[in-house]
Amino acid sequence: MTVSPSTLDELRLKIDALDSQLVELLAQRAKLTAQVGQYKSQVGLPIYVPEREAQLITKRRQQALERGVSPVLVEDLLRRIMRESYHTQNVTYLCTNPELKKIVVVGGAGALGRIFVDMFKRSGYPVCVMEQRDWTNATEIFKDAGLVMVAVPIKITESIIAKLDHLPADCVLVDITSTKQKPLNAMLKAHIGPVLGLHPMFGPDVSSLVKQVVVVCHGRDEDKYQWLLQQIRIWGAMVQVVDAQEHDDAMVFIQVMRHFCSFVFGAHLAGENPNLKQLISLSSPIYRLELAMVGRLFAQDPALYADIIFDNQGSVSLLSKFNQQFLKALALVEGNNKGEFIKQFLKIGSWFGDYSKQSLIDSKKLLLKADDDRTWSE
Amino acid sequence: MTVSPSTLDELRLKIDALDSQLVELLAQRAKLTAQVGQYKSQVGLPIYVPEREAQLITKRRQQALERGVSPVLVEDLLRRIMRESYHTQNVTYLCTNPELKKIVVVGGAGALGRIFVDMFKRSGYPVCVMEQRDWTNATEIFKDAGLVMVAVPIKITESIIAKLDHLPADCVLVDITSTKQKPLNAMLKAHIGPVLGLHPMFGPDVSSLVKQVVVVCHGRDEDKYQWLLQQIRIWGAMVQVVDAQEHDDAMVFIQVMRHFCSFVFGAHLAGENPNLKQLISLSSPIYRLELAMVGRLFAQDPALYADIIFDNQGSVSLLSKFNQQFLKALALVEGNNKGEFIKQFLKIGSWFGDYSKQSLIDSKKLLLKADDDRTWSE
Repeated sequence: MTVSPSTLDELRLKIDALDSQLVELLAQRAKLTAQVGQYKSQVGLPIYVPEREAQLITKRRQQALERGVSPVLVEDLLRRIMRESYHTQNVTYLCTNPELKKIVVVGGAGALGRIFVDMFKRSGYPVCVMEQRDWTNATEIFKDAGLVMVAVPIKITESIIAKLDHLPADCVLVDITSTKQKPLNAMLKAHIGPVLGLHPMFGPDVSSLVKQVVVVCHGRDEDKYQWLLQQIRIWGAMVQVVDAQEHDDAMVFIQVMRHFCSFVFGAHLAGENPNLKQLISLSSPIYRLELAMVGRLFAQDPALYADIIFDNQGSVSLLSKFNQQFLKALALVEGNNKGEFIKQFLKIGSWFGDYSKQSLIDSKKLLLKADDDRTWSE
Repeated sequence: MTVSPSTLDELRLKIDALDSQLVELLAQRAKLTAQVGQYKSQVGLPIYVPEREAQLITKRRQQALERGVSPVLVEDLLRRIMRESYHTQNVTYLCTNPELKKIVVVGGAGALGRIFVDMFKRSGYPVCVMEQRDWTNATEIFKDAGLVMVAVPIKITESIIAKLDHLPADCVLVDITSTKQKPLNAMLKAHIGPVLGLHPMFGPDVSSLVKQVVVVCHGRDEDKYQWLLQQIRIWGAMVQVVDAQEHDDAMVFIQVMRHFCSFVFGAHLAGENPNLKQLISLSSPIYRLELAMVGRLFAQDPALYADIIFDNQGSVSLLSKFNQQFLKALALVEGNNKGEFIKQFLKIGSWFGDYSKQSLIDSKKLLLKADDDRTWSE
């Protein structure tokens, strides 16, 4: 078949007509999922039901194969559409503890505290936000509290907790700090009732809790706060239970190391002062992403990262060990010892095991998505 | 409105029907874009036309707003659909130099060489792949070559180029090594005709060249290889011209630094031996991505990364400077000097300028996409 320029315009018109149908279809679908969301919030079903999601995708992948359409394309589109409906379909959630008289969120006007205040309210709890100026009325505020959540910056968490020594005996005391041992010990000391530590593994910019992780470190009287864990699950999040010590050890690897290295990388770039624009224009998708991972740090609150790096007792020791590894590797480059570099590379690869291959696959998928958004003007 | 369980099933059936329509719509759209692709390959139009893409998206975003659908959702879906059509619509490309008698790709069986062999063939060029065993027939092979591309590992690039000293005078000699100064000098010395250096900024796993970057370092007789640059543009890639020295300096920052740091990070993890599975399960999306960026390195060819790190003359000096920055920052943590850390953090942030904010926005978008693919089973 030969296509002439006039039929090119015709083809484009037909494509536009299909794209218009797509938008109509999305509008209809959003109406239906809003009704599903309404039903779920009435009966307290989680918005995210893995089996339904898997089933829905399997059916459409099958149909795609039959129609000669890429099943990967269909799955990617459906996942994106479902993300939208998870984030918009629920304005309210079932309340798992309707008897509860009051929730007090200390520091509830802060970035992360605000999210919990919002979620509690949307689940029908009476919520009271307590800020610094409210401490003069503390006795009144805490009098009939069934849950007190501490959502203040790390450095003042323990001193704030120490002041919470007159809560009702059956009140659940919980914190959401990014370290867990110290706050948990402080809570167990201050309060005689139920205690647990939470670490929400997401930033204040999430648009819903669907598929997010909330780390749980048990403190005291687990059975007294099961309703809270169930509430978090109804919001769509995944609850991961771990020992407080193990949590803190893991965080040195996860948070401290990465933030510190990104900081040093940024300091190094700023010190050497290369042409940043040129670096970006010469970068492949993977380097652009890696550079962005460093750059993004410096658009955020320095005090928060200072707290995370400086306030973990394991930081200095682990960073020193990292530096030793750096110097050992540098000696290989100085000595032009490629053989030993390759030997160690393979050894590290076997430590990572299947994870490295999976990472390669996952990151490729993600890089393709990053490419979607590129335009020539960059 | 109250929704009962039976209507929940009904709602789900209606959603399934819409999703089925979506697949049909994609099948129809693919047929149309295949015809567009066919037309473009006949007349030599690039598959990726930024203006058409921008226009198409603008119209649908507008419609989305009118219909109460998220314009961001619509744009994401359309970009994903267009990626698919870019990657599948073109099986052949217009040939910008049909007079050319032969292209020889030295090392054309290698990962990256294979991509160029494929693209040249799909553009109608007679292509000859030359491997080690073929050197005995070199005179015969190179006799009527109009383009010779060197696509061999870095460490043998210069010695291979030195052997190419009897090419036809009008033959274009080009390499695709990830360093540019040395290969370019070697080519200018070996060959009296047109010479240029390319650095394709993508891995061997790309499914098309659309929106990829190809760095160009001019060597000699630019006008004699304009057809090649035009050919690369027709494949959908973006050509970035840069001086060879500037290119190599930039690559120390872009490639050497990142790979080396990822290597050290991996060595450090393997040495400390934390529970990797637990680290991942406790990670937020951003940490998961950062960990994946380290892990993916070790699923790849160690010799390639050894060459990239060891064969760049600037590596040791720049890595040593990085280490000094690391020690300076570590001293701040040891001395508990948060004030100075915050001061430096802000200074680095202003060096990054708008880029850091943009990175934060871009990476947030990407992290949301990463979340789409998560399931509870992880």
